[in-house]
Amino acid sequence: MRITTRKATSDDLADLLQLVCELAHYEKAPDEVWATLEDYEAGFTNNDFESIVATDENGTIQGAVIYYLTWSTWKGRMLYLEDFIVKQSARQQGIGAILFEDFLKRAKELGCRLVKWQVLDWNEPAIRFYEKAGATIEKEWWNGKIIFEKESNQEL
Amino acid sequence: MRITTRKATSDDLADLLQLVCELAHYEKAPDEVWATLEDYEAGFTNNDFESIVATDENGTIQGAVIYYLTWSTWKGRMLYLEDFIVKQSARQQGIGAILFEDFLKRAKELGCRLVKWQVLDWNEPAIRFYEKAGATIEKEWWNGKIIFEKESNQEL
Repeated sequence: MRITTRKATSDDLADLLQLVCELAHYEKAPDEVWATLEDYEAGFTNNDFESIVATDENGTIQGAVIYYLTWSTWKGRMLYLEDFIVKQSARQQGIGAILFEDFLKRAKELGCRLVKWQVLDWNEPAIRFYEKAGATIEKEWWNGKIIFEKESNQEL
Repeated sequence: MRITTRKATSDDLADLLQLVCELAHYEKAPDEVWATLEDYEAGFTNNDFESIVATDENGTIQGAVIYYLTWSTWKGRMLYLEDFIVKQSARQQGIGAILFEDFLKRAKELGCRLVKWQVLDWNEPAIRFYEKAGATIEKEWWNGKIIFEKESNQEL
């Protein structure tokens, strides 16, 4: 597979959402994906997120990083890697390493002082990958979240 | 103490950074704060973050929430609470509850589907506070991060 990477455009959003849905299905949580293509289009237009995609020689997307700009109160500008997906059938070919490298490059381009992301505690291959890349893994933080009712968004 | 809240303006940034530094000092990590007032001014102008401050009857800031817009690939628009500070001397007066309520309101105003934040695993009072507010606490995610050298930012 000959892989090239590029920044995602609005034409890629349907494929990106498809990748996200495939992963949710694999994780046995297909009903948890509420976001629609219209949401992705609105979010992308509003710069809520950016993405870099890895395509094969046919232009088919085989993997992607989805990230956004955030703020560390201690360090300043921070790029947050929300999703990092390589298609099941395209793994073990270094696509993840290329995408992660591009993500770090983009963070530096944007003047970020750091990058951050999350990894599941049982995902040893991913943890090894990140540690090899020089990452610090913090284990003492828990996530809090409140999900609003589906309806609450539509009232606005 | 008569508390009122309002959105932070650029005039509040020095006070906000001061609050952040006090907290870092309390956490015995004063050297970890690299961000300068100029960084805060640039980030604020760029909409990298927003803040709501709680002031007393003299207009002095007693607490603040610092947050930014992000993207959940499953749910869509998400507001992330990066920092949630109430001055040591102003605790136990409900200021945190007011600020958290304002943060949730702001998330709904912005059309967010969910809010997210982190809490240290040993911080039982905070965890109880969030659970009472209806939050889900996730314990299975670890944070990965790579901090760039101080210099790398200045090359850009």
